[in-house]
Amino acid sequence: MTRDDALALDATDPLAPLRDQFALPPGTIYLDGNSLGVLPKTTAARVAEVVTGEWGTGLIVSWNRAGWITLPQRVGDKIARLVGAAPGELVAADSTSVNLYKVLAAALDIVRADAPQRRRILSERSNFPTDLYIAEALAAERGFELVLLDTPEAIPAALDESAAVLMLTHVNYRSGRMHDMAALTRAAHAAGALTIWDLAHSAGAVPLDLNAAGADFAIGCGYKYLNGGPGAPAFVWAHARHVERFRQPLAGWMGHAAPFEFTPGYRPAAGIARYLCGTPAILALAALECGVDSVLAAEPLGGLAALRAKSLALTRLFADEVRARCPQLRLVSPETEAERGSQVCLAPRDEPALAYAVVQALIARGVVGDFRAPDILRFGFTPLYLRHVDAFDAAVQLAEVLASGEWRRPEFNQRQAVT
Amino acid sequence: MTRDDALALDATDPLAPLRDQFALPPGTIYLDGNSLGVLPKTTAARVAEVVTGEWGTGLIVSWNRAGWITLPQRVGDKIARLVGAAPGELVAADSTSVNLYKVLAAALDIVRADAPQRRRILSERSNFPTDLYIAEALAAERGFELVLLDTPEAIPAALDESAAVLMLTHVNYRSGRMHDMAALTRAAHAAGALTIWDLAHSAGAVPLDLNAAGADFAIGCGYKYLNGGPGAPAFVWAHARHVERFRQPLAGWMGHAAPFEFTPGYRPAAGIARYLCGTPAILALAALECGVDSVLAAEPLGGLAALRAKSLALTRLFADEVRARCPQLRLVSPETEAERGSQVCLAPRDEPALAYAVVQALIARGVVGDFRAPDILRFGFTPLYLRHVDAFDAAVQLAEVLASGEWRRPEFNQRQAVT
Repeated sequence: MTRDDALALDATDPLAPLRDQFALPPGTIYLDGNSLGVLPKTTAARVAEVVTGEWGTGLIVSWNRAGWITLPQRVGDKIARLVGAAPGELVAADSTSVNLYKVLAAALDIVRADAPQRRRILSERSNFPTDLYIAEALAAERGFELVLLDTPEAIPAALDESAAVLMLTHVNYRSGRMHDMAALTRAAHAAGALTIWDLAHSAGAVPLDLNAAGADFAIGCGYKYLNGGPGAPAFVWAHARHVERFRQPLAGWMGHAAPFEFTPGYRPAAGIARYLCGTPAILALAALECGVDSVLAAEPLGGLAALRAKSLALTRLFADEVRARCPQLRLVSPETEAERGSQVCLAPRDEPALAYAVVQALIARGVVGDFRAPDILRFGFTPLYLRHVDAFDAAVQLAEVLASGEWRRPEFNQRQAVT
Repeated sequence: MTRDDALALDATDPLAPLRDQFALPPGTIYLDGNSLGVLPKTTAARVAEVVTGEWGTGLIVSWNRAGWITLPQRVGDKIARLVGAAPGELVAADSTSVNLYKVLAAALDIVRADAPQRRRILSERSNFPTDLYIAEALAAERGFELVLLDTPEAIPAALDESAAVLMLTHVNYRSGRMHDMAALTRAAHAAGALTIWDLAHSAGAVPLDLNAAGADFAIGCGYKYLNGGPGAPAFVWAHARHVERFRQPLAGWMGHAAPFEFTPGYRPAAGIARYLCGTPAILALAALECGVDSVLAAEPLGGLAALRAKSLALTRLFADEVRARCPQLRLVSPETEAERGSQVCLAPRDEPALAYAVVQALIARGVVGDFRAPDILRFGFTPLYLRHVDAFDAAVQLAEVLASGEWRRPEFNQRQAVT
């Protein structure tokens, strides 16, 4: 592969026009859309309209007139199209952590009613920590046991008569390894367990079909591949067979059947609305809607299937070039493409401290990836706005940082608050 | 009182210049700042800078460089100055409902350890419903009983050996009645109970001193008198003697001692940071900071003591004029000023259906209050941006709507989603 080969791929890429939706900073190759998606060009004007027009001028009447009160549902219906959910099945609200608390509580409610002898919540030790922390706390409060498996291969054997819930992140945040949602959901159900899928690194990046998989619950993040902005609201979905079996622990008024009757007793709303809690974050939801729209713009061009094909082409290109140019690094992400999310993770073969510093040196060159403790160099490939030549150039720059030794400079070795 | 008298009061009002901080829609008298505060002039530019500059250009490095990662604390320290809390004692995060869940869980943890025979959570039937719903759910989950008192006068007698927690909203959302925080906290402590104060209708409106009152926990709202925008993040405070006794049920990664070590086991952060949960909502926090700054701008002019004096002058003026001009209405808010928050609530003497329609007819005239079921006309008086002449004119318009019968028009009697 030469740089001209990469440029030739871009010239015939049917998804190439989608890049123009984004306000990409000049001189930057942004490989961190799996941490914070880039800014869609529509967002600034839309947020300004919400601030100045809907809030500033419309004030309180915007709850009705601007449709604020149903914004969690409106944005939720759009996200539903990206994850294989039906309209009315998904809402955008709160954070991923808070939403996990809701769905895990819902799943434990169901287990408590239907199979009280099942006491184990299964997950992976390598799952994103916030998921494990939430599960650890809720398991302790409700008398369940959180069991952490060391490898994905250990999951089937752990699905026994003690298993209550299988709680997995679909694409691992560090390794980029992707689970087979349909197969694992079948295995869990065959064993009598429920499934919770965290789609933080999947929604907007890989094709998903929650209903076809028969998944039980799902949550996901608004600020990664959905381009919703820093700390954007997250989302929550429950399968129709479960959605109304849920006694909301975070029983805020927005999940009430009639919040504006102001009655002292809680009566849950029908359907997914009962998973809402407090007053919706309107500015943040408006920004998230622009981000989701930027992904939906791919629908006429083949949607997530086309995005997935391009994502695999990008990760393949980058991994191949790194393999050829960077003998100091090994590939952590799966070689098998069916198991790879939209990211490539690398680790030093010999010198673990290299990982953090190389990422900083690359950022200084305008190639933005991130470091994940203890020794992972993580590069996300968002096919909406990345080109083949970006993947090629990033590999070349990575090789140069390693070969030149510039990563050894002190300024690239000082840890910051957020890594 | 004549209109010229009101104008004369405005001409000598030392707080009058604060009004210029706000983008008030022309032709509107906005008496709903206790539902949604108005837009500060600084907010649009600040939010645009965060969207376009910090997010769009800075992207992921803004977590460090723009200080996003400590924004909950930075905004929290500013709110602390308005509620009598010390720096480092308060964070801005999540919704009021979610924060109530945290502090009620914290209080129940302490009771479980120190006084397990105490099983009653005391509140008022007239408390804001979301507080009651959250408490009802948590009480059921943890084996406590939520006891709702019908009048404030019933509180002292209910503080007996069964009382675990006294959970009150400082200023009642419907009636505007304000509790004596210090006296009730003393009474609760004398009886062996903990206190939780919801400051939704107090923070930024009336002087507060959480530490002087010896309160145990407090929460509050960012989108009312703090002018943070629709669905702004809320805040949470815990007294220093309790803050680290808390096992966070919503154990998200931002409350972890070292979130970026990505370790699988939860270890709570020191101090109030453990009350954080998911990734902070940066756009919303940036808007909230502008709103809080708009209240802090009163500090050189006497701060909340001065704002309180003006608020009482405004509510007195409005109540007096309504009493003189609107025989169809009675005052629901307390006559005693020490018991009155920053709002005036009225109810029809004879015809309950009048309440909703009159509010709509007033909105059509540019006088924005709100209706609270079943029959309350609610008018909030934010002394930061309201003038004496606004209070006078609002009373005159209210009298005209009643005298003319225009509120009987069909368009003012059609209920909307949000009332």
